[in-house]
Amino acid sequence: MDNDLHDLFLDELADALHSETQLTKALPKLIKAAESSELAAALEDHLVETQGHIDALQQVFESVGEKPRKKRCKGMEGIIEEGDEMVKEMKKSNAIDATIIAAGQKAEHYEIASYGTLIAWARQMGHDEAVSLLEEVLEQEKAADQKLTEIAESIANAKAEN
Amino acid sequence: MDNDLHDLFLDELADALHSETQLTKALPKLIKAAESSELAAALEDHLVETQGHIDALQQVFESVGEKPRKKRCKGMEGIIEEGDEMVKEMKKSNAIDATIIAAGQKAEHYEIASYGTLIAWARQMGHDEAVSLLEEVLEQEKAADQKLTEIAESIANAKAEN
Repeated sequence: MDNDLHDLFLDELADALHSETQLTKALPKLIKAAESSELAAALEDHLVETQGHIDALQQVFESVGEKPRKKRCKGMEGIIEEGDEMVKEMKKSNAIDATIIAAGQKAEHYEIASYGTLIAWARQMGHDEAVSLLEEVLEQEKAADQKLTEIAESIANAKAEN
Repeated sequence: MDNDLHDLFLDELADALHSETQLTKALPKLIKAAESSELAAALEDHLVETQGHIDALQQVFESVGEKPRKKRCKGMEGIIEEGDEMVKEMKKSNAIDATIIAAGQKAEHYEIASYGTLIAWARQMGHDEAVSLLEEVLEQEKAADQKLTEIAESIANAKAEN
């Protein structure tokens, strides 16, 4: 297991753990800013899932015989900072929910890319338990992204056009 | 057309224009660092496409009667900075191509989220020309992401495991 891909895998896991931790701090602000109850509920659900992802990542570390660690994730930091600014800017507007959804989908896509990479690397190294834990997380990220698309199409975008 | 969604659309277009411009500066470094010729060629192709996306975004601005403008995109900045650091760290390793692909796919996914949002908003406002220009760009981003997955699976991940 002592190879370059193993090191890279641990680095990306540590990045993902920091990224999910940042999200647990960012999501409550988005929930508070959301205008439609459907959007707030979807974000609440995803906050609970995000806490589960932190546990899952810790299990992935343990499944490959390593201690969980975090590494500052500048990608997610930039996405959250940008989202915060946009939400502040649009706070009093009809487009607040559309703004929150756009910010949320950027965070989801960062994670979709990260988990896709982690799964490919875990599969390459034959870490079956890690693959199955990470696949479950990835499915929840994709479902959360899809849910945001549905809310955008059914409520938020039409409302923003006022 | 003078509504909150229109303002938000222009903001996100300006973010996308800055993001693509940053990529035209980041991609040449990744091309230089790539070890496999297949990866270097895929990134070269995407650099040419990225220049085309800048033109397309300018056309989108014009199609809605606005002048092209840029807005600092902190999301892409964070992703590029993080990618730069990882590539430097793994430079001498067998996992350099796997690292470049992981960084590239995060950038692609940021853009997939951004263009998905822009298309939904343009469609909501009935900007047909913008929708068709943006859909073409989105298809290229998705294809670039898919190509990187193929190179990871066929070459880079196996090589990294040494």
